[in-house]
Amino acid sequence: MSILTVGTVAFDSIETPYGSVDKVIGGACTYISWAASYWYNEINLLSIIGEDFPEEEIKLLQKRGVSTEGLVRVKNQKSFYWSGKYHNDMNNRDTLITDLNVLAEFNPKLPTSYQNSSYIMLGNLTPAIQLSVLNQLINRPKLVVLDTMNYWMDTALDELHEVLKRVDVLTINDEEARQLSGERSLVKAAKRIHTFGPKYLIIKKGEHGALLFYEDQIFFAPGLPIPEVIDPTGAGDSFAGGLIGYLARTNEISFNNMKTAIIYGSTMASFCVENFSLTRLKNLTAEEIKTRLHQFRDLSSFETKELNAF
Amino acid sequence: MSILTVGTVAFDSIETPYGSVDKVIGGACTYISWAASYWYNEINLLSIIGEDFPEEEIKLLQKRGVSTEGLVRVKNQKSFYWSGKYHNDMNNRDTLITDLNVLAEFNPKLPTSYQNSSYIMLGNLTPAIQLSVLNQLINRPKLVVLDTMNYWMDTALDELHEVLKRVDVLTINDEEARQLSGERSLVKAAKRIHTFGPKYLIIKKGEHGALLFYEDQIFFAPGLPIPEVIDPTGAGDSFAGGLIGYLARTNEISFNNMKTAIIYGSTMASFCVENFSLTRLKNLTAEEIKTRLHQFRDLSSFETKELNAF
Repeated sequence: MSILTVGTVAFDSIETPYGSVDKVIGGACTYISWAASYWYNEINLLSIIGEDFPEEEIKLLQKRGVSTEGLVRVKNQKSFYWSGKYHNDMNNRDTLITDLNVLAEFNPKLPTSYQNSSYIMLGNLTPAIQLSVLNQLINRPKLVVLDTMNYWMDTALDELHEVLKRVDVLTINDEEARQLSGERSLVKAAKRIHTFGPKYLIIKKGEHGALLFYEDQIFFAPGLPIPEVIDPTGAGDSFAGGLIGYLARTNEISFNNMKTAIIYGSTMASFCVENFSLTRLKNLTAEEIKTRLHQFRDLSSFETKELNAF
Repeated sequence: MSILTVGTVAFDSIETPYGSVDKVIGGACTYISWAASYWYNEINLLSIIGEDFPEEEIKLLQKRGVSTEGLVRVKNQKSFYWSGKYHNDMNNRDTLITDLNVLAEFNPKLPTSYQNSSYIMLGNLTPAIQLSVLNQLINRPKLVVLDTMNYWMDTALDELHEVLKRVDVLTINDEEARQLSGERSLVKAAKRIHTFGPKYLIIKKGEHGALLFYEDQIFFAPGLPIPEVIDPTGAGDSFAGGLIGYLARTNEISFNNMKTAIIYGSTMASFCVENFSLTRLKNLTAEEIKTRLHQFRDLSSFETKELNAF
């Protein structure tokens, strides 16, 4: 039983109020794979890179249990490159450069060894590519999680709806949930989005935590206040990686287990933002992670004293 | 043992995406008193009104256990009046009109019967007035909670710091916490604000919940997603009222009890926003409140499965 992760493996240049880094390792699939690798070690990575992507980064992933058979390297071309600058509050950013490079011709072919993957994490990409990956799977996977963004709602809404029909869990932010549903209220937005396909809707709210909607039930996962958020890049992908890694490890799909999975996802995201690029995600100890999970448990627990109101 | 609530008793005109109301009952002290009255019924209200404020509103408060001996009515003058318009996302609003009217000459004198109040809720007002109230108390109260806003940080920072020295619990929003502390990180902001006086800092984040900082500990209270937020006016004051009402009822000051108090405060705020003015707060049943408290309990609880990370 394997996890399949699809998305970019790329370079980022990032400026935040704490500093800037140039052409560091990034990409949704990279963050997802690293975060998931702490919980599961049969991960099939599907992506594309250029000649410029360092071989040692691929070796590091392989050591974490990540198969890179589906990582295609294109000669004489460059890897996907994104450059962005965060505002003072870290909740908003401007994209400065998006160089698609090899991504422009990404038409993924699923290696035979990937075709039986059970837990599918479709990172933020063109809906057409996400759909093509689903079409290449031989068996109905146990779970399909999809990450997307407002850009695809603006430019490829029909294709996005096609993918959504086949998705179990959708992760988007609050503004995207409002845009996709046309509803201001997140409760109503969730009801509408459920009718598009996803039984589970996870609304990511950054430092404010995340909401999980399933049938008529809601779960509110807290955001752990971090002393110094250095760089939010990859936080959503680390969240997705922790989520799918935990779900594959426990191999149980239920509202209750999805709640805990979100806490595991939030935990990985909370490490990610503590430094630039994958710096923190590459060097976590089991002890550090356990301590952080305990912080999350304590963060939102309280005694329920039942008083009768006058 | 009594609660003392200080703040405006006023009229509001409000426009939200759901409609508008003209000259309805409002004011921090009104919301605080109503919300607190479901948990405690010895409440001393200290405020000022003009000739125009309806007597039946005062009678309704008295029926809820609110003493209005300290509610001064000024002849030939008008009550405080505020008018505002909410943006589409309900998280931001523009103030259209602020008519101080009687509030311009508010120089509260504590009735003798109020002087022994134990739980003090200083609603958002000029820091000089908040300080004057504290100076008129005979005994050191059990707890002083202060609500304030960026306006006083801009215009009366020195007086605000004087009050803060004598405050146990401060409630502000995240941007105000950053402004008051000069720190971007809320964790660092809290550490700095603790040195100003308040042992407990509550950061209100509206629909995103609230954070409680105490010593090195943090509690994250969820915000309950409401199907239709009609009017957020008074939510912060209803929160404060539920908080102080619960604390007075249980008469226990500790980090653990403060957490539960925040859930009670959030519960009252969640009702407040469901309609304009005090419509919802005036007509709650004990059963409705119990159900809502259970929703809050379920909202953020999850099973902690302990896995060892690879």
